[in-house]
Amino acid sequence: MHAIEKLLAEKAGKHQVATGEIVNCDVDIAGINDLYLQTVLSFYEMGGEKVFDADKIVMFFDHYAPCATITQAENHKQFRKFCFEQGIEKLMDIDQGVCHQVLADKGWVHPGEIVVVTDSHTTTHGAFGAFGTGVGATDLATIMITGKLWFMVPEIFRINLVGKLQPGVFAKDIILHIIGDLGADYGVYKAVEFAGPVVNGLSISERMCMCNMSTEMGCKTSYIQPDAVTMEYLHNCVARPYKIYETDTDFQYAAELTYDVSKIRAQVAAPSSVDNVFELDKYAGTPVDEAYLGSCTGGRLQDLAVAAQILQGRHIPKTTRMIVVPASKKVMEDAMELGYIQTLMQAGATITAPGCAACLGVHQGMLAGGEVCISSTNRNFPGRMGHVDGRIFLASPAAVAASALEGKIADPATYLKTGDCENGR
Amino acid sequence: MHAIEKLLAEKAGKHQVATGEIVNCDVDIAGINDLYLQTVLSFYEMGGEKVFDADKIVMFFDHYAPCATITQAENHKQFRKFCFEQGIEKLMDIDQGVCHQVLADKGWVHPGEIVVVTDSHTTTHGAFGAFGTGVGATDLATIMITGKLWFMVPEIFRINLVGKLQPGVFAKDIILHIIGDLGADYGVYKAVEFAGPVVNGLSISERMCMCNMSTEMGCKTSYIQPDAVTMEYLHNCVARPYKIYETDTDFQYAAELTYDVSKIRAQVAAPSSVDNVFELDKYAGTPVDEAYLGSCTGGRLQDLAVAAQILQGRHIPKTTRMIVVPASKKVMEDAMELGYIQTLMQAGATITAPGCAACLGVHQGMLAGGEVCISSTNRNFPGRMGHVDGRIFLASPAAVAASALEGKIADPATYLKTGDCENGR
Repeated sequence: MHAIEKLLAEKAGKHQVATGEIVNCDVDIAGINDLYLQTVLSFYEMGGEKVFDADKIVMFFDHYAPCATITQAENHKQFRKFCFEQGIEKLMDIDQGVCHQVLADKGWVHPGEIVVVTDSHTTTHGAFGAFGTGVGATDLATIMITGKLWFMVPEIFRINLVGKLQPGVFAKDIILHIIGDLGADYGVYKAVEFAGPVVNGLSISERMCMCNMSTEMGCKTSYIQPDAVTMEYLHNCVARPYKIYETDTDFQYAAELTYDVSKIRAQVAAPSSVDNVFELDKYAGTPVDEAYLGSCTGGRLQDLAVAAQILQGRHIPKTTRMIVVPASKKVMEDAMELGYIQTLMQAGATITAPGCAACLGVHQGMLAGGEVCISSTNRNFPGRMGHVDGRIFLASPAAVAASALEGKIADPATYLKTGDCENGR
Repeated sequence: MHAIEKLLAEKAGKHQVATGEIVNCDVDIAGINDLYLQTVLSFYEMGGEKVFDADKIVMFFDHYAPCATITQAENHKQFRKFCFEQGIEKLMDIDQGVCHQVLADKGWVHPGEIVVVTDSHTTTHGAFGAFGTGVGATDLATIMITGKLWFMVPEIFRINLVGKLQPGVFAKDIILHIIGDLGADYGVYKAVEFAGPVVNGLSISERMCMCNMSTEMGCKTSYIQPDAVTMEYLHNCVARPYKIYETDTDFQYAAELTYDVSKIRAQVAAPSSVDNVFELDKYAGTPVDEAYLGSCTGGRLQDLAVAAQILQGRHIPKTTRMIVVPASKKVMEDAMELGYIQTLMQAGATITAPGCAACLGVHQGMLAGGEVCISSTNRNFPGRMGHVDGRIFLASPAAVAASALEGKIADPATYLKTGDCENGR
């Protein structure tokens, strides 16, 4: 069996499971973000009275924090009331940041666990060897009542990454390249495992980026086998015992794909789908109105570090605005401590409160019609960040910084010729 | 003549002016904020082609920065286009902050000048001995074309402040007390001069707070005679020669009022008008949902300093959210340098990008129905910060911090018993 299957079997109280089998599993962490007030409503509609285990439920105010509308404020008010009534202590209020990063910062995700959040990018937690997946309100309400949720055991395919990353090329470029190659529906209801020597060398931050974006090729979940890098990350923040599963050596993957990252250059997903991927060079020189650095894909400390490295002592042009949204409070605090926030502000960037911000077109950096945005986020559908005629190019944080600096889409390799970024792998 | 009259006379090219006279004056700084796209539209509707002097025009993106809606983004796009076409270099983009603070930070306001902005709190600049006043789009468009605007020479009354401020009592408390005493319409189309030994001891920050709020009793403009404190502030940032006018000793004020600040305790303007002022004690213990520290009235470095002093090593309760909006980029940068931002974040506060934010109910901290907010801002009308049934108490930054800490309206004197705040007068 694969580690994912062993994990699902254990959580379902079974010795083994097979691809396509429906299993009913205990959920270790159930997260609700503020887009999903319906979860609370469904909880009561379905007869819920008391949540199964208040300690396993996390409420995140991230998609609109602080609130930009009265409706949002009313929603937060109802969420808070629910948390106080139900004794949910893990209310991550408007100061905390994006759910996935907060879970990582707090050390609340452990290998071998099931993490379910009302957010499609919950695949992020494969970076820790957890089974992370996003669901809707009804499923999450079910978990809140029963502590369990059913899953179909997914097909599992493996992506092996070999070679050596070139200067100015990052995990974001790899995953964009893969999504562009395989297409947005390649992984529908499948699990992807990222493996190989390149993955072993990636930081937790970069692993989270790749696992996060696996959902953009349809994956139900993602997985990276926990290793020394994982252990080091977890060393200071483990709150409870956990189990690391190993895949049997005779496990048959549904597919095995290999990419030589040496051949990958800086990538962009051009408007308006995530799998519309090209080498950045194709669009180099395109004037940029907004350079957006943030989100659960690209707003981590390492992302701010490389941006600060590129922008240190330089200033963006008046024709381009740069918005930096640290993924979490901890990222913001650490980035201040290390001087990244200061450097980015001196370069002309606007720093907002941690959260999802303009990634999903709710506030803090909306696009006007016809504007071009280069963004470290994970989606570029029409209207995603504002006006339906805004054009969004997805790229690495380094490419966002380089493009902000030049006021047009630019390859970060120019600024990173000496090798990996200072806070790198 | 009064210094204000001498100033108006000079700008009108006259030797003297009299109360009630209409004078057409040269304007030194004409500011447009992003609520007033109509200014640009009116400029063209009125036949404008080229602005009279691009260097005297400042564009501020502060009321919704970064943009929370597509309409706002479209407005900013039009503003930027106008600035680029007209050669307006002083485009204060989304990273800069609230117009009045930005003008002060940049050193663009000098004594003896006329400052007109499409913002009612332009009276702020009386703190520098300037004639500051807010106008609408048509008036500002007129200035953009002609460089001039007409004013009726206002009646001038003087408020003398004597006595000694008690611990936990600030300029904000003084001005709230005065507004409560005189009423919201006392100063309609009058100018107020703040004078006396207490004023001499106030910092520029506190002077700006008082002058800012003079508009809340209807004043057309406000004035504080430039002194050593003013000179010290201007020392490093003066961009052009300026003139300090002195009021003639025989000048007859329309009224002279004296307040003994020794008798003033911490104040609040209770819902829902700025002149509905009481001693804070009357409402002490009222549970607070949101504590809002920011705005052109209460988001300056000194305001963040006293809040940090109160919250250092402490944490706000889960039932209260605290939102801190530095008034400008410089305030944010200085507050990071001094550790205030870090202290406030550790205490549980959410820090947003500099700007007007929730002060006027546009984004970044809206109130739900029935919620109570204690705010360092300048208006508490129904719906001002979100839901029409939200209840806003205006108070000093120190009172906001103390109330955040206790989760209910609280007198900051408890935390400031040793005297003035560390970054004080």
